Amino acid sequence: MKTLLLHARTFARIAPRLKGLNAALNIVTVDDAARFHDAWTSEALKEAPAVDLAFGNIDAFYSPSVREFMTAILKSPDFDWFQSAAAGIENPALVAIGQKSKRYTTNHTQAESMAEWAIWQAMDFFRDGPGHRANQARGEWKRIAVREMQGSRWLIVGYGSIGQAVGKRVSALGGVVTGMRRTPGPAGGAARVVAPDTLMAELPGADVVLLCPPHTPETEGMADAAFFAAMNPDALFLNLGRGALVDEDALMAALDAGRPAFAALDVTKTEPLPEDSALWKHHKIVITPHDSSDTPGTVARGDETFLANLQLYLDNEPMKHLVDRSAFLAG
Amino acid sequence: MKTLLLHARTFARIAPRLKGLNAALNIVTVDDAARFHDAWTSEALKEAPAVDLAFGNIDAFYSPSVREFMTAILKSPDFDWFQSAAAGIENPALVAIGQKSKRYTTNHTQAESMAEWAIWQAMDFFRDGPGHRANQARGEWKRIAVREMQGSRWLIVGYGSIGQAVGKRVSALGGVVTGMRRTPGPAGGAARVVAPDTLMAELPGADVVLLCPPHTPETEGMADAAFFAAMNPDALFLNLGRGALVDEDALMAALDAGRPAFAALDVTKTEPLPEDSALWKHHKIVITPHDSSDTPGTVARGDETFLANLQLYLDNEPMKHLVDRSAFLAG
Repeated sequence: MKTLLLHARTFARIAPRLKGLNAALNIVTVDDAARFHDAWTSEALKEAPAVDLAFGNIDAFYSPSVREFMTAILKSPDFDWFQSAAAGIENPALVAIGQKSKRYTTNHTQAESMAEWAIWQAMDFFRDGPGHRANQARGEWKRIAVREMQGSRWLIVGYGSIGQAVGKRVSALGGVVTGMRRTPGPAGGAARVVAPDTLMAELPGADVVLLCPPHTPETEGMADAAFFAAMNPDALFLNLGRGALVDEDALMAALDAGRPAFAALDVTKTEPLPEDSALWKHHKIVITPHDSSDTPGTVARGDETFLANLQLYLDNEPMKHLVDRSAFLAG
Repeated sequence: MKTLLLHARTFARIAPRLKGLNAALNIVTVDDAARFHDAWTSEALKEAPAVDLAFGNIDAFYSPSVREFMTAILKSPDFDWFQSAAAGIENPALVAIGQKSKRYTTNHTQAESMAEWAIWQAMDFFRDGPGHRANQARGEWKRIAVREMQGSRWLIVGYGSIGQAVGKRVSALGGVVTGMRRTPGPAGGAARVVAPDTLMAELPGADVVLLCPPHTPETEGMADAAFFAAMNPDALFLNLGRGALVDEDALMAALDAGRPAFAALDVTKTEPLPEDSALWKHHKIVITPHDSSDTPGTVARGDETFLANLQLYLDNEPMKHLVDRSAFLAG
């Protein structure tokens, strides 16, 4: 019988959905105090168990016992399947699991919440949130002429699951979306899809430029001094991808020089961002701590992906979002 | 020949669209320094002219010379048509013009921008904007579990042009909208349309309650202690209607008692809101200075409404958004 490892909080949430699998699976849990238990009997285990399957979601990865969770997988003699709650695979810990695991599946249900982050940041920019809040703090009733999402022009660099989730929302709100990606052809939410080699030509015409391509040698540091100099002085720069896409010193210099107008970053080169980083204090930069996907909705959608794939696994059917092993072995 | 009064800024913007009307209309302008000119010749007029038609938009109403603009209309012997840039007619100055004018038309193009205000405020609430900004100010990288627009439940009280503009956007973003209005039947953007007498039953199930009904004896003070006590403790209260709809002391007491969670007001009972008002300082209240419609888009759409109605006027065709004179004579 295969053994499945879950965080205790995950098990508590989805236990009703796992009923009926008792005969097919042995389920063990790890809690935030790094204690392992048999899931159904609550019996404490003396040591980390050997496991065959695991669901690595937010409960596990942001737990104080993430190390014990990972170690249990990496020390198991014959690990079979890892379901990630994330889309990306470049994190070193995930690469180690990918190399160990016979099968590795990703998850694209974070895109919905991440897309709402982009709408949030754009609305606060168009509406001059900082200006309104400064006036409120002073008790000053001063009307501010602001901009509209309707009619705004977006360039979304990396038009995959996240980019399209943003594009659909922007279009629904009356914005005009250009998606940029290597694969040609139409895509949901975009008025146009263009190739990456048009980047410098597309930048000047955008009111919002959003980065969400994968982190590759080609995209690393792509948002540099030349990139920012090509942007519209009234434009907003958003990064939902990886911190390594952006030259942060070039961004601060560009904002100081007045082009682009503002930036919001959910990711930074160093995470957590050190308390003394100049990015925190820059008055034209909003920082969020890589939490754009941290919603109950993301957790619930991730559970559904896991449960659907678990059923496929038990039925010996092909699972969804399976990653080719060469992706990890090359890394 | 009829004389049309425009603010100088309005004329400068739409002059190309008015070309060809020279034979049909005499056009005069007033600028921010209360100087009147013949529009096409730029010749200064010695005194305020008698006028027949006027376009009362943001340029005119937020001008230092709004008084001279109004007086020119009210002193004209035979005033024929007033195009307002606003939807409401309860402002005393507008009532005076409505009583004076043979024809009075309103404008519903502010709804688009006002609806974006509601999306902005809701996103900042769901995403915990205040919490993120406080953490950034401290240089603290601390993930915050936030909520999604997707799946959020909205009660929109007053499901007219503004309410529907909000409802369409909320639905497009995956929210579920209940519209409340006197007229039964389906309406764009709403999953359900309910009657005002269900208010107290509908309040507990909403994550966001938005007020945008007209100000009438029935709606005045409708958001009182009982209203807030019926709301969900996690819910957001939004007012895009009139300040008089809300008992502001009851709102502050309700927020202090923990129900609803937060409020955002674009309108207040006294406008401008006095600097020493407690509303400014309440940490669970966002105030914007009745500027939710202040976008270039609103101005442009208002110009289009005026130009379309002007053409209908010159062609002796029925104009759009004509208000029945009894509305002003009763007031």
